[in-house]
Amino acid sequence: MKTTVAQLNQHIGETIELEGWLIKKRSSGKIAFLQVRDGSGEVQAVASRAELDDASWAAVESLTQESTLRLGGAVRADDRAPSGVEIHLATCELLDQSPEFPISPKEHGVSFLAENRHLWLRSRRQRAALRVRSEVCQAIRDFFYERDFVLIDSPILTPAACEGTSTLFETDYFGNPAYLSQSGQLYLEPAAAAFGKVYCFGPTFRAEKSKTRRHLMEFWMVEPEVAFLEFGGLCELAEEFVVSLIGRVLDRCGAELDVLERDRTVLEASVAPFPRLTYSQAIEQLQAAGVEIEWGADFGAEEETLLASQHGKPVLVTHFPAAIKAFYMEPDPDDPKQVLGVDVLAPEGYGEIIGGSQRIHDHDLLLRRIREHELPLEAFEWYLDIRKYGTFPHSGFGMGIERFVAWVTGLPHLRETIPYPRMLNKIYP
Amino acid sequence: MKTTVAQLNQHIGETIELEGWLIKKRSSGKIAFLQVRDGSGEVQAVASRAELDDASWAAVESLTQESTLRLGGAVRADDRAPSGVEIHLATCELLDQSPEFPISPKEHGVSFLAENRHLWLRSRRQRAALRVRSEVCQAIRDFFYERDFVLIDSPILTPAACEGTSTLFETDYFGNPAYLSQSGQLYLEPAAAAFGKVYCFGPTFRAEKSKTRRHLMEFWMVEPEVAFLEFGGLCELAEEFVVSLIGRVLDRCGAELDVLERDRTVLEASVAPFPRLTYSQAIEQLQAAGVEIEWGADFGAEEETLLASQHGKPVLVTHFPAAIKAFYMEPDPDDPKQVLGVDVLAPEGYGEIIGGSQRIHDHDLLLRRIREHELPLEAFEWYLDIRKYGTFPHSGFGMGIERFVAWVTGLPHLRETIPYPRMLNKIYP
Repeated sequence: MKTTVAQLNQHIGETIELEGWLIKKRSSGKIAFLQVRDGSGEVQAVASRAELDDASWAAVESLTQESTLRLGGAVRADDRAPSGVEIHLATCELLDQSPEFPISPKEHGVSFLAENRHLWLRSRRQRAALRVRSEVCQAIRDFFYERDFVLIDSPILTPAACEGTSTLFETDYFGNPAYLSQSGQLYLEPAAAAFGKVYCFGPTFRAEKSKTRRHLMEFWMVEPEVAFLEFGGLCELAEEFVVSLIGRVLDRCGAELDVLERDRTVLEASVAPFPRLTYSQAIEQLQAAGVEIEWGADFGAEEETLLASQHGKPVLVTHFPAAIKAFYMEPDPDDPKQVLGVDVLAPEGYGEIIGGSQRIHDHDLLLRRIREHELPLEAFEWYLDIRKYGTFPHSGFGMGIERFVAWVTGLPHLRETIPYPRMLNKIYP
Repeated sequence: MKTTVAQLNQHIGETIELEGWLIKKRSSGKIAFLQVRDGSGEVQAVASRAELDDASWAAVESLTQESTLRLGGAVRADDRAPSGVEIHLATCELLDQSPEFPISPKEHGVSFLAENRHLWLRSRRQRAALRVRSEVCQAIRDFFYERDFVLIDSPILTPAACEGTSTLFETDYFGNPAYLSQSGQLYLEPAAAAFGKVYCFGPTFRAEKSKTRRHLMEFWMVEPEVAFLEFGGLCELAEEFVVSLIGRVLDRCGAELDVLERDRTVLEASVAPFPRLTYSQAIEQLQAAGVEIEWGADFGAEEETLLASQHGKPVLVTHFPAAIKAFYMEPDPDDPKQVLGVDVLAPEGYGEIIGGSQRIHDHDLLLRRIREHELPLEAFEWYLDIRKYGTFPHSGFGMGIERFVAWVTGLPHLRETIPYPRMLNKIYP
C-alpha cells in the first residue's frame, strides 16, 4: 500500500510503496543504501543487487541527488535509524533523474543559497526551521481560538501614512497613494469594541534601509487587542502567550530542534513567571553593569541582550519614558512621564520579541498626543471615534513571528525563518 | 465575580459583574430593560428603580446607545432570551456616555455605512458575518494542520509581473519595481518538493477596475499544493475541504446563521459526493437550458449560477479547454486540448469558490507553454527548476475565502465578509 515516511512505523513488517526524492546514496556495487525523503520525513532503504530485478537495480544505480523515485519494500524496525525504521527494498522505479543539484552537501555561500531559495528549501536544516515556523503559526491561532478571540484580518492597503512615509512601501490605488501596512493595531481597536477580544496575524512591511540579521522588509506579525484589559492583564497575557508557544515547540518539534542542534536549556527554563523590571530598574542594572546609558534613552541590541541574558529566560520590561514610545500609549497614573508599555526581551541575544501597551482611551488626551506628535489629524479621525462612542480601557501587543522562531530554533539570522525572505536588495525568487 | 456574557449560563443564581456597551434601552420610569453586549454576546439586564441606589439608577437613566457600562447583578435562567439568561440588575456604573451614535437602528445607505466601517462593525449582522469568517479561517487552518500540511507563507512582494501588469499593484522596492502577489502557487510548488503537502493562506491583491459585488481589491486566499497528488485526488481534496468547512460552520455558528437569517437547507444538503461534470457536459446542459454558448467559451456569472443551481449543492466542473485556463495546467492525457482543471461552483448564485488543477510537471512542455503564452521566460526560470531537479506530478487549488463566507452566510456582497473591504475607490478607513 502507498504510504508516507511519517506513517512507516505503523506498517512494520508490511510491504509498502513510497514516492519521494533521493537525498544521497552509498553503494558497494552489491548493496546500496538510499536515503530517501518524501516531505513527511526521511528513511533509509537498503537495496540488495541479488534480490532486485534488473530494472529496479538499474533504477537504483541511476539515482542521483534529488531524483524522484517510487519504491516498494518491507518495513523493518531499526532502533539505530532516527525514524526507527528501515525499508528492505523490493522494487525501485526512477521517476525523474535529476541533473547535478546546485546545492550539494558541501558548503555554499549565503548569497548563492539565497538565489536558490526555491531549491534550498529542500535542505534538512531549512525544512526543520520552516516546520517549526508552521507549528508556531498554528499554535498562535490555537492559542487565540481557544480563548475566544475573533480573528480580524486587518487591511494591508491603507490610505494614510500615519507616522510619516519614510519606511512605507507606497502603491498607486486608482489614482491615490496607498501604503502597505506596518501594523494592524489601529484597525483592531474598533473591532475590540465589537468583539471584545480580537487578533490579527498577517504580513507587515517596513521599507527600512537596514541590512541586519534582525530585519526583514516583509514579515508576519500577530497582534491581539482586548477590550477592558488593563496593563496588568496585558503583561499576563503576553507571558502566558510566550510560555504556551515555547511549550508547544518543545512538545511537538523535538525532531526539528535536534536537526538544528538547538540547546533546549533556556527554552525549558522559560516557564512562568518571567522576571519583570521597570525601565528605570533596567537602566540601573545596565549602569551597574558598566553600560553608559542615561534615563530616557532607548535600548539598542546590546542593552537588550545584556538585560535578558542575566535571567536565562524572557524578561518583561515595563514603564518606559513616554518620549521613546508611540503616541497612543496610556500614561502611567503614578508618573505621567512614563507609559504603560511592555517589551518582552528574549534571552541569548534575540532581543525584543513582543512590544505592547495599554492604549489611551481618553478622547481629549489622545487628541492632544496626536497634535504633540504633529501627526495628520484627518488620518486619525476614525481612530479617535473609538474614544468618542463608548470608550473603554484596552490593551494589546504585537509579536513578529520571525524573531520568535529565530530564537526558539537558535538561528542567527531571520532569513531562514521565513520561506521567501525579502531583504534589502533581495527579492528573488 | 467578573465574567462575560458568553459565560453567564455557567453562573445562574450567582451575582456577577460585566463590562460592555448598551445596545438599547426601554424604560417605563420604574423599570428599565437594558440590552447589553460585551463582545462575547448579548444579554438583557432588568433594572428596577425600587431596588437600585440613586447612583445606579442615575447611571441607568443616562445610558445612551453605545455608552460603556459596568453592571452587577444576579443571573437568572430565562427560556425566552436568546442567551437563555437574564440579569437582575443590582448596580450600574456609567463608564462613558456616548453622544448620538451615527449608526442607529434605522436604515442607512451603503456608502454611509462603508465610511463608518469602524463603527458599523458593532452592528449585529456585521458581528455575525465576521464571526463566521473567523470560524472559517480557523477551520481552514485546522483542516490542513490535521492532515500534516506545512504552512508556507508565500511572499506578498514579488519581483516579476509574471502575467502582465494590468491588474497588479506596483511598488518601488529600493529602486526596482515589485508587485503585490495575486497567488502563492508558484512559491508553493518548490515547497511541495521539500514538504510534500503545503499550503499558504494570506492576502492577495487584484487591481481590477471592476465594481461588482463579487470583487475585492484585497482578499484572503487559501492555496494547498500537494506533491505526487494527481487530478482525481485533487478533486477529492477539494470536495472534502468544502464539506468539512460547511460542517464546521453548521456545527459552531448556529447563532450567527440565525442572526443572518440564513436558510440552512442548501448547506445541510452539501455533503459528499458533489455532482461532477466535465466542461463539455456543462456546455451541453447550458445549451439544453437555452443558453447561447459554444464549446470553448468561458463561463460568466450567469452560466455558473445556472450550472450550480440545478443540483442544490456545490458542483465540480472539470476538463476545461486549455485555451481558457492558465498556462501551467496539465493537459488531459485523453484529449490534449483539454486540461486537468477543476472549478467548484457554489449554488445559489455564488459562482466559483475554488479553482485548481494538476500542474504540468514535464519541463519541456511547461517551457513550451510559457513561450506559447508569450510570458517572460527569465521570470520563470526558478519555477522551471522545479521540473528540472527531480520533477513530480503535483496538484493544488485556491479558494478566496470571502466568496466562501458570502455563500455560507448568504450575504449578497463580499464587502460584509471582510473587516475592512478594499474596493474600487474605497480604501477608507
